[in-house]
Order: sequence, then C-alpha cells, then structure tokens
Amino acid sequence: MDSLLTVNNIWMMICTGLVFFMHLGFAFLEIGLTRQKNTINILFKNLFIITMGLLLYCLLGFNLMYPGEFNGFLGFAGFGLSSPIADGSLDLAYNEGYTYWTDFLFQGMFAATAATIVSGAVAERIKLNSFFIFVVLYIGLVYPIAGSWKWGGGFLDEMGFYDFAGSTLVHSVGGWAALVAIWLLGARIGKFKDGKIGAFPGHNMPFATAGVLILWLGWFGFNGGSVLSADPELTSLTLVTTCLAAAAGGVSSFIVSSVRYKNYDITMFLNGILGGLVGITAGADQMSPTDAILIGAVAGAIIVFGVALIDRIRLDDPVGAVAVHLICGIWGTLAVGIFGNLAGVDQFVTQLIGVGCYAIVCILGSFLIFYPLKKTIGIRVSSKEETEGLDIHEHGMDAYPDFGLKQH
Amino acid sequence: MDSLLTVNNIWMMICTGLVFFMHLGFAFLEIGLTRQKNTINILFKNLFIITMGLLLYCLLGFNLMYPGEFNGFLGFAGFGLSSPIADGSLDLAYNEGYTYWTDFLFQGMFAATAATIVSGAVAERIKLNSFFIFVVLYIGLVYPIAGSWKWGGGFLDEMGFYDFAGSTLVHSVGGWAALVAIWLLGARIGKFKDGKIGAFPGHNMPFATAGVLILWLGWFGFNGGSVLSADPELTSLTLVTTCLAAAAGGVSSFIVSSVRYKNYDITMFLNGILGGLVGITAGADQMSPTDAILIGAVAGAIIVFGVALIDRIRLDDPVGAVAVHLICGIWGTLAVGIFGNLAGVDQFVTQLIGVGCYAIVCILGSFLIFYPLKKTIGIRVSSKEETEGLDIHEHGMDAYPDFGLKQH
Amino acid sequence: MDSLLTVNNIWMMICTGLVFFMHLGFAFLEIGLTRQKNTINILFKNLFIITMGLLLYCLLGFNLMYPGEFNGFLGFAGFGLSSPIADGSLDLAYNEGYTYWTDFLFQGMFAATAATIVSGAVAERIKLNSFFIFVVLYIGLVYPIAGSWKWGGGFLDEMGFYDFAGSTLVHSVGGWAALVAIWLLGARIGKFKDGKIGAFPGHNMPFATAGVLILWLGWFGFNGGSVLSADPELTSLTLVTTCLAAAAGGVSSFIVSSVRYKNYDITMFLNGILGGLVGITAGADQMSPTDAILIGAVAGAIIVFGVALIDRIRLDDPVGAVAVHLICGIWGTLAVGIFGNLAGVDQFVTQLIGVGCYAIVCILGSFLIFYPLKKTIGIRVSSKEETEGLDIHEHGMDAYPDFGLKQH
Repeated sequence: MDSLLTVNNIWMMICTGLVFFMHLGFAFLEIGLTRQKNTINILFKNLFIITMGLLLYCLLGFNLMYPGEFNGFLGFAGFGLSSPIADGSLDLAYNEGYTYWTDFLFQGMFAATAATIVSGAVAERIKLNSFFIFVVLYIGLVYPIAGSWKWGGGFLDEMGFYDFAGSTLVHSVGGWAALVAIWLLGARIGKFKDGKIGAFPGHNMPFATAGVLILWLGWFGFNGGSVLSADPELTSLTLVTTCLAAAAGGVSSFIVSSVRYKNYDITMFLNGILGGLVGITAGADQMSPTDAILIGAVAGAIIVFGVALIDRIRLDDPVGAVAVHLICGIWGTLAVGIFGNLAGVDQFVTQLIGVGCYAIVCILGSFLIFYPLKKTIGIRVSSKEETEGLDIHEHGMDAYPDFGLKQH
Repeated sequence: MDSLLTVNNIWMMICTGLVFFMHLGFAFLEIGLTRQKNTINILFKNLFIITMGLLLYCLLGFNLMYPGEFNGFLGFAGFGLSSPIADGSLDLAYNEGYTYWTDFLFQGMFAATAATIVSGAVAERIKLNSFFIFVVLYIGLVYPIAGSWKWGGGFLDEMGFYDFAGSTLVHSVGGWAALVAIWLLGARIGKFKDGKIGAFPGHNMPFATAGVLILWLGWFGFNGGSVLSADPELTSLTLVTTCLAAAAGGVSSFIVSSVRYKNYDITMFLNGILGGLVGITAGADQMSPTDAILIGAVAGAIIVFGVALIDRIRLDDPVGAVAVHLICGIWGTLAVGIFGNLAGVDQFVTQLIGVGCYAIVCILGSFLIFYPLKKTIGIRVSSKEETEGLDIHEHGMDAYPDFGLKQH
Repeated sequence: MDSLLTVNNIWMMICTGLVFFMHLGFAFLEIGLTRQKNTINILFKNLFIITMGLLLYCLLGFNLMYPGEFNGFLGFAGFGLSSPIADGSLDLAYNEGYTYWTDFLFQGMFAATAATIVSGAVAERIKLNSFFIFVVLYIGLVYPIAGSWKWGGGFLDEMGFYDFAGSTLVHSVGGWAALVAIWLLGARIGKFKDGKIGAFPGHNMPFATAGVLILWLGWFGFNGGSVLSADPELTSLTLVTTCLAAAAGGVSSFIVSSVRYKNYDITMFLNGILGGLVGITAGADQMSPTDAILIGAVAGAIIVFGVALIDRIRLDDPVGAVAVHLICGIWGTLAVGIFGNLAGVDQFVTQLIGVGCYAIVCILGSFLIFYPLKKTIGIRVSSKEETEGLDIHEHGMDAYPDFGLKQH
C-alpha cells in the first residue's frame, strides 16, 4: 500500500466529512434567519437535498461532471459508479490524491451544496413538490454539466479559467438559480407593502450563528479538500487564506453596517463572514494572507450593500443568499484576476468570460425548470398556507409544539 | 517512527473523535423527539453515559471485551489499562493500525453508544438512579462480554459470524435492552388510552434534525474507523456505502411514509436515515454502492412499518429506538448473508445464529438488571413527577426557564 | 514531498479545525447559561473575538509570541506573516511537524480562546465597545507576550516551567482577566440582594450541554495538537488522558454536588467536565490514565466548591468561568509537579513560580485595560439596558422573536 496515497486519502475523507457537515450549517442558518412557522419545511428541504443529491450524483451526476475525454461541453460516462469491488480491480493508482470512492463522495457533497443555496432564498413560500423537482433536475443535470466545463476538463478549463473551489462553480451556480427562483416566486406576503420594506426577523439567532460557525468549519474541507491532496504547503496556506478572509469579511461587514445603520446587526456580521468565505473560494490557494484579508474585507462590504440592493429591487431573499453566494461568488472569481499569483488583465478577462458562461447556463437552466413548474403545478403555496405556516400545512406539525408562540 | 502507523493512527483518532461526537447527536435527537419538560433529565442521562461509560470501560470493559487468548465465551485481562507510559515500554508495534491508547479510546466510545440507545427508549418516565445502575452493569459487563464473542475473537468469530461495525454488537445490543426496558416500564401516561394511540410530538425539530446529521457525520468514524486502519480502498468504500445507505434510507422512509400517511413527516425522514445507517453497519466494507442503496432503502421502509408495529403491540418508544437500532440492526446483520462479497446461504445461517445469540444474552442480561430494580427501588417515576416533568422534580430546573411554555 | 511532514501537518490542520470549533462550544455554553434577553449580545461578542482575534494574531500576535531569538521577556519579529508564497521560498523544513501556515493558524485559534473565557464572566452587563477594546489589547498584546515566556522559548521555558497545552498560558490567562473584570464590573442587578444570592438560571440547557460536548471534542485538537506532531504514542496517550480527566471531572462534580445540594444539577456536571479538561491540559502528555482520572476528579470537586466560593465573595460570574478556567487551570498546572513523569518538589515549585508570574502579568494587564475604560467611556451598561436586555438595546433585535417569552 502506498503511504502517500493513504495520507492524501485521509485528508480527502476528512474534508468530505466537513463538507457534509456544512449541510447542518446551512440548515441552521436558514431556519435561524426565517420564521418559526416554516422551520420543519426548511429542515425537510435540506434533508431531501442531501439524501436525494447523493443518490442522483451516484446515478448520473458524477459521470456527467467527470466524463473523462469529451467534447468540452457535454459528456457522460454512463449510469452509476463504475469501480466494482468484487472483481479485485479497484485501481489504487486512480489518482495519487485519493481513491475513486473518495473522489465520488467528496464531489457528491459539493453537488448537494449548490441546491441548498437556493433553498434559503425560496424559503417560507415555495411549494415543496416543485422544489423537489427543481432539486432533481438542477443537481442531476445543470450542476454537473456546468461543472464539467471547468473541473471536468471542459472548454473553460482549456481557456485558463480559474475557480479553485467553486466561487462560481458552486456558489454562483446556486446563486443564479436563487435569483431566478425568487424573481419567479415573488416576495413573501407583507415584505413590500406601501412602498416600505417589511422586517421579518429570523426566529432563532443562536441557530443562525451556529450555522455560520459550522459552515466556516466546513470550509476547512471545502477549500482544504479542493487541493485534491494533502500537500502540506497548499493545504495549510489555503486554510490560512480561508480563515483570514472569513475574519476580514465579518469585521468589515460589522464595521460598514454599524456605520451605515448605527446598529450592531448580527445578521450582517454572519453574512459578512460567509461573504468572505465565498469570496476567497475561487483563489484560496493563490493568495497571500494580505490578499485574502483584502478579498474578504471587500466581500464583507459587498454584503451590506448587496442585501440592501436586493431589497431595493424588490426581490425577497430571506437569508441573503443572492448577496452572499452570487454577488460575492462573482467578486471572488474576478478577484483571481486582481490579486495573487494569477493576477493580470488576461486572467481577469478570462474570469469574466467564465462568470458570463455560468450566468447564461444557470439562468437558462433554472428558468427552464421553474417557469414550466410555475405554469403547471405552481411553485408557490397558497396565501392561507403561507400566513399560517408551511409546517402545519405540509407537515402537520409544529417545530416547537411545547413553546407558547407569539402570533404575528 | 513508522510512518504508516502514524498515518493509520491519525485516522483512528479522528474516527474516535467522530464517534465521541455521536453522543451530542444522540442527545439532540432524543431531546428533540420528546417533551420539553424532560429535557434536562435526558441530557443528564447522556452526560452520565459518556462519562461513566468511559471510566467503566477503562476499569474493566476493555479487558473483558479484548481479553486476548480466552475460552471464547468469557475472559478478563485484569483491571485498568495495562500499557504504562513511565517504564518506556509502550509497544508501538501493538498493531500497525493504531496504538494501544487509540484502541482503548475508540472502543470506549463505542461502548457508551450502546447505552445511549436505551436512554432514548426509556425517556420521560424512567427513574434516574435505576437507569444509572443499569448503565453501570450493562456497559460494564454485558456489552463487553457479548462483544468479546465476535470482536474479541470469541466463538462467534470462530464460526464466521460477520459484523463489521456493530449492527448487532452495538445497535442490537442496545436495541434488545431498549425492548426489555420499555416492556417492563410500561407506556407513558396517556400514550395508549381508550384503544387509541396518543400523539406526543417532540418539542424541538431543529435539535432532532441536527442530531441525525451529527450522527451521520459520526458514522464516518463509526464505520470508517471499524476498518481499523486507514487502508484507502476499504475506508473510502466504507464511507461511500455508509452515505448511500443513509441517503437511501431517508428517501425510502420519506416516500413510504408519505404514501402511507399522506403527510411529509420529518421524524420518519430522520429515522429512515438512521435506519439506513444502522442497516449498512454490519457489512459496510463488503457492499457495492448498489447493495448499499438497496440495504438502506429496505431499512427505510422497515422504519415506517417498525414504528407502527411497536405502537400496535402497545410498547411506548418515544424516539423509535427499537425500530431503528434493533429491527434495522437485525436487518443489516442478515443483509450480510444476502448482499455483497459474503452473500450465501451458509453465511446467512451464521448471521442468524449470531443474531440469536445476542438476542439471548441481551434479553437475559437486561431483564436480570431491570427486573430486580423494578421489584426493589423501582424503575419508574411517580405519575405526579411524570405529569409535571422530570426536570423540575429530579433537577429542580427548567430547560428553558425564560420561555413561556404551553401547558399540556 | 516529505511524507512524515505531510502526515504531521494533516493532524495539526485537523486539530486547528477542532480548536476553531471550540468557539461554537463556548458560544453555546455561554448563551445557554445566561438569560435569553442577552443572547445576541453574547453571540456578537464571540463572533468579534474569533474574527478580530485572527486578524490581530496575524498582524502582530504571532510574531510577539514566537519572536525567535529574544531576551526571554519581550520580542517582536515584525508585523504580518512573513512566509510569502510568491517567491517560491516557502520553507517546508520549517518544522517537521507542520508548515509555517499551519503553525500560525493553530496558534491563532488558541489566542482567540483566551478572550472567550473572559466573555462568559462579564456577560449580561458589559458595554460592548469597551469589551471590544479589551479584546484588541488583551489578545493583541498581553496574551502573546505572556505566552512567549514559555511557548516562545522565554525565561519560564528556560526555567523548566511546564504547561503542555495551556492550563496556565490559555485558561488562567483568560481566567485572571475574567476575575479582574467581574470585580471591576460588579454583579448583575439582583444577584446579591439582602444578603442572599439570587438565582439566574440559564435560558437554554440544550445549548449549554451542546457547548460542553463540542468543547470536549475541540479538546481533542487543543491537547492532541499540542503534541505539535502526529507522534502516535504521544497523541493517542494525550487523547486518553484528556477524555478520562473529562469523564472523571464530570462524575466527580456530579457526585460531590448531589451529595452537597441533594440535587442533580446539570450545570455542575457540565462545569465538572470542563474543569477536568482544563485540569489535565497542563500535563496531558505526562500522565498515566490513573493520574488523569485523579486530576480530573479533583478538578470536578474544585468546581463545586469554587463556584460556591466565587458567590460567597460576592463576585458574579454567570457561567462559572473563574472556577473552571482559573482555579482548575492553576490546579492543573500544579498537578504537573504532583502526578506523572515530571512529579517532584522542584517541579512543583517551578510550576508555582510560573503560576505566580502569569498571575502578575494578567492581573496587571487586564486592570490596566479595564480600569481606564471604566473611568472614561465606562464598562457597564445602564441599569435600564441591563434590565430590559442588551439584545434590544445594543442590537435592536430579539434572539427568538417568535417565541412568547416570560417576563422576569
């Protein structure tokens, strides 16, 4: 047995576990920032995403995303996983960084993440069945095909587009779909009324905070594992840039929002941390600590203005998913052309092209899924259901049946 | 220093940490699925289990379970841990997969798990002192002795019985005791009344969901560490089968229960995931991905019918522990004879014999502990205490004193 | 690439992640043990500590704490991190246990921990801005300078003072500042009234329990990583002593408190576990399992009497931080001279000297920060703000806006 393979493979398995754990982080964040009456509904969506996401990625996603030799736009290596264990042929030389199984599982955890981002934006009003159909099609087809363009060795990879761990391939891919979805869905009842923006405070700040800290921890695996080996220099540098960008994002968002709103708003601090994490993700292995702090700090400021912008254009994004994942995802992707080892005009233009390609496929893809759904079975729950809460209507339960809850 | 030992040992230590973390998962799941008035009581039980469990396993469990050469039924290598650090004799060649210390701690975390399973089933009505006595005797004696039959190289191991990570040795061992305990304890007041089954919704679905996701993460260590080395092929295959079975269990339980009950019941989704995990545990290193999905899917369906069955025979299991850990544990153990590398009639029969042996020792063992307790100091709290909540009576506190709670 | 470096570095990165995760543990513990009306305020403090702490440690802390050759009292290797990635000079031979980046990040996570300890003690009444200034100065200057005396190779290291993972360098350093702070701050309104000690039960026991279990898990990294390599013997022994001390601390505190107060007090169980963990930290790599159990058991008893003592001298420490981190930190440091490989009168005296040196610098340092703050911008919120809650006043939000909360 090759010792270095074993070592690398351990690191990749740990990172896989950490990315898996991000699903708890997303779930906590999302329920924390929304109202208690829709809590079970959100948890249910998140359970569906991680379970169905893994099954779909096993059935077809993995082989769409990493089809081997292909035309650079679309390839498919067949249904199911192809490395049987019974015939003794498991190829340990598959890659010196990990086994075939580790590769599948690590990438499978990523795939589910993209859908989770959408889940937050559409929370509190989407029809569950329609969301399930979206998840199946988006994780099953759009995410892996779009992903193959870069990580599968497709045309964007050939062109020199750089996205280390997925500011674009994961976060923007989720973010674009979130944007399309909230545009088609419309705002929650009462959010924009008489020209005013209604406040819908999240129901549980400890969960929201725990969600962000769990996500930060998960990012150790998300970025650290994207080195695709345990290379000591690259993995450890990546963790440093990741953590510094998160820290800078949080502090920057805290300062900018407290200057602007004269208030210590914890949701800004939280989303600032996430913005910093999303921002560093495209180039986490290419930046110095100072670069990372700058990228994170800009991302943190983007959050404050981005959240306000989404409100101003009358889109309703309960958790700030578009600002965090789409806007900071674009920022991080472009930042690869501005900071660090790859900085340069050519690289910046290439990054811009990459961002544009993903914008097109994701907007088209998510529109082609959500629009027909809207025109047929519908994507939005009834106003009665929305007002009284999805938990009681779709799940026949209350998330906290023993607590006396305020009506509002 | 041998590099491969170091590598393997890292993996085993990480897995130890993950199995430890399952105790938070169990605690969250258990309080989430029960009423708020008994929350502290449950947390207290779980703290007792992990702390006392480790001390007991250090004092005698480890040396009962792994006694070295013995008669195959019962052996004991002496009190306490035997690898002193002061005399410079620590044997790094103890095992190429881990050191003596890692071995102890990994196994110690497992030992405590078995008792936690019982804790969920008896929740909301058991007398704390009696439960403590049960824990001491069951973790201290029954679990390690029964475990020695297979993992300690005893007679079931000789016979070819296979239980990779404990569908039987851990989960059924907990599950049988849970069954005996709830039969002796009786149902909670109001659970079965006038021929109807009362609904006792859990008080906190976010905790229940977090519990399951933490348990799933913990299973990376539970199964991944049961390879007893960092062998890249086996560990990574094991993580893939584990995760696919969990995913299939959840989706299957979700579908079956929504068809049957016309309702999206999150507790079924959650227990389906756990059922899939318990089901794959006996053969996680012997299955293909397809086998794993099938095993998980069957386990998910078993959960729906199993929970209903326990209700129908008028046993009160607040968290579904018997369906999850006992029934799916048996299913997973038998599945080793049906699917994967070891499938065959002989193996199936051997698995059946193993299941039977553990049934006998665990039913007898737990009965011999609980029955005398019932006849002497009692195992059930007073009906006043049960109605008003164990937290106030046994702990003089409320788990959430600042919240206005509904009476019921 | 050197395989052993890669292996060691993986372990250190994992431990870094685990120590990071302790910040969620501290946050959960602290909000769990305090009232709901101050929840956001506490979470905000904790977010500030981890983000600003990392930035400060990057800017100057790391180079103050590990200045290389210096006079033994004070040294500084310059602002910022000095290992650039652009010029190809990253020195993989920096240390055979980890890279420069890993070293920084692991130590940076420790730095932030010290301030978190203070946060718990001053909860529910400190003015946020003043606390922020304290954090900047204490993490930025006092912690790293004091730390350099031992871990940076300073005069206490030369003298033979032993503190493996920070019973003194981290926990007492936080604990002394906590003591000074609560003395200057005064007790919460109503805590000591008419000669009686008021009860302020924490608002969420599940969070408090989750916090402790997460902290215990984090200690796998805190102590396990302090080996500074993945040495299989030392790391695994360290995990065993750490877990046994935690277990013994919890059981001991449970028994002592239930004998003394005739009550199963979960907060005592929780703080007992933490006391055991803090107690073993100074000598976790030097103890036998039996030593570890004894050290933990004594720490558990200390908690029960320590918490009562702090109350009796009319200091108000909402979470028991002084008993856990300061008193058990001192106990653990002295225990190195009593138990294990280093036991002896000379060592005991050296340990005592070390404890004294840290007492002086920390009491002085925190007084010189807090006292001027008290005399200028003030360190305590208005009584109106304290009564109504810091969340509404400083953050304009409620942590659980959907729940009907009891007034008190």
